[in-house]
Amino acid sequence: MSENNFFLKRKTVRKYTKENISDEKIAQMLTEASHAPTTGNMQLYSVVTTRTPEGKEKLSPAHFNQPSVKGCDVVLTFCADFNRFVKWCEVSDAVPGYDNFQSFMTAVLDVTIFAQQFCTIAEMHGYGCCYLGTTTYNAPQIAEALNLPDRVVPVTTITLGVPDGDAPTSDRLPIEAILHKELYVDYDDDTIKSLYAEKEAREDSKNFVAENNKQTLAQVFTDVRYTKEANEVFSKIYFDFIKSKGFEL
Amino acid sequence: MSENNFFLKRKTVRKYTKENISDEKIAQMLTEASHAPTTGNMQLYSVVTTRTPEGKEKLSPAHFNQPSVKGCDVVLTFCADFNRFVKWCEVSDAVPGYDNFQSFMTAVLDVTIFAQQFCTIAEMHGYGCCYLGTTTYNAPQIAEALNLPDRVVPVTTITLGVPDGDAPTSDRLPIEAILHKELYVDYDDDTIKSLYAEKEAREDSKNFVAENNKQTLAQVFTDVRYTKEANEVFSKIYFDFIKSKGFEL
Repeated sequence: MSENNFFLKRKTVRKYTKENISDEKIAQMLTEASHAPTTGNMQLYSVVTTRTPEGKEKLSPAHFNQPSVKGCDVVLTFCADFNRFVKWCEVSDAVPGYDNFQSFMTAVLDVTIFAQQFCTIAEMHGYGCCYLGTTTYNAPQIAEALNLPDRVVPVTTITLGVPDGDAPTSDRLPIEAILHKELYVDYDDDTIKSLYAEKEAREDSKNFVAENNKQTLAQVFTDVRYTKEANEVFSKIYFDFIKSKGFEL
Repeated sequence: MSENNFFLKRKTVRKYTKENISDEKIAQMLTEASHAPTTGNMQLYSVVTTRTPEGKEKLSPAHFNQPSVKGCDVVLTFCADFNRFVKWCEVSDAVPGYDNFQSFMTAVLDVTIFAQQFCTIAEMHGYGCCYLGTTTYNAPQIAEALNLPDRVVPVTTITLGVPDGDAPTSDRLPIEAILHKELYVDYDDDTIKSLYAEKEAREDSKNFVAENNKQTLAQVFTDVRYTKEANEVFSKIYFDFIKSKGFEL
C-alpha cells in the first residue's frame, strides 16, 4: 500500500483559514455527493448550511461551543428527512407508512452515506472537514435553531473550511481487529491486549492518560470522554426527540 | 460540472462476473476505509466477509434471496460493534457505559461512514457494489448466520464483485430539493410537484408505475416497495433485536 494513498493519508481538520468557499462550489459538491447510494432512490435526507455569524451563534452551544463551529466557513447539518418524501406521497394519492423506527433507521443510513460522500469529495478538493458527534446529543436545540419540521431529525454535522496549517493523521487499529472472515471470531483478553498495544504505546496516548489523571487509556473514554451518565441522559433526549418528530417506536 | 466526474457517474452494480478479488485486495481496501472519520477514534464497527457458497447460502434468505448475494464475489456485512471496545475497557480497569441507545447510534454512524468509504474505494478500483437494505429487516438471522456476539448488530451489507456489463446511472432530485440555506424551508404542494416532476416524467418511472398496476409513482413505494405493514413488522424486530444485543433504550 502506497504511503501516498489519499484515503490512508486523510485527516480530520478542525482549524480553518478565513477563506470562503463559494455557495456554487458547495452546491456542486453536494450534488456530486447526492449520487451516492440511497435506499430505493428515495434520498431520505436534507442538509442545512449555516454560514452567517448569527446562525453559527445559535448552533454553537448545541455543539458545546466546539471552536470549529464558529471557526469554520460553513456548518453543514445533515438530517434524516422523511418530510419531503411523505409530502410527495400526499400529493400523489399515496398513503405513506413511514412513522416508525425502521423508516428512521433507513433515513439515518441514507443521510450518513450522503454526508460521508460529501466529506470525501470536499477532502479531495483540498478542503478540511470535521464531524460533530454532538449532533445526536443536542438534536432538539439544533432542530429549533434550523427550523426543522416534523419527520426531520439531525443525525450528523460537518464543519467545512480551507485547512489552516497541517493536521495530524490519526492512528487506526490493525485490520485484524475489524475484519472477520465467514464467522465473527470473538476476542479473548490476550487478543484484545495485543490489538490495542500499539495505540496504548503511542506518545500522544500516554500524554492523554497523564493529562486526564487516569491509569489507562480506556479510562479516559469511560470516565471523561464518553461516560455512562452522559450517554444515558442523551439516549433519552434523542430517543424522545425521534418520537416527537413522528417516528413511533 | 464535468460529465466525466467520477461521483456523478457512479452506479450501483448488481451483476458480477465470476472473477475473484483477492483477500489481500479486500483487506487493503478495508484498511484504507478504516481511515475514514470515526467517533473519538473508537472505530465502533466490524465487518464480516462471506465468500463461501455455504456462507452465502445461509445469508441469502435473510436478504430475501436477492440474486446479488449468491451472484457476487464477496458479501460484506457491516456491523455496529461495541463488543471489542467494551472488552478493551474490561482488560483496562475501565467501567464501560455503552449499553444504551446513544451508544448504538454512535456505532451506527461509525459503521455507515466506514461502509461508504469502502464502497467509494472499491468503485474507484473499478469494482461494483450494491447495498442491501434488507440488513435492518432480518438482522436476527444475519447475526445467527455470522455468529455475532452481544453488542454487535448488523447495520448494512455490501455485495462486491467485478461488474458484468454496464449498469444504468440513477436519476437524482435537483439539488434545491435537499439543500436548505440557514433555515429549513418547508415544501408546499406546488414545490413538491415541481421537484419530483422530472423523476415522474422518466420513461423508467412510467414503466415502473404500469408494471405495478398503480396510478402514481409514489404508490409504487407506499403500496409495493416500502409498505406500512412491512415497516411496522421490521421496526419491532430490529428494535427488539438491538435491545437483546445489549443496547437498552
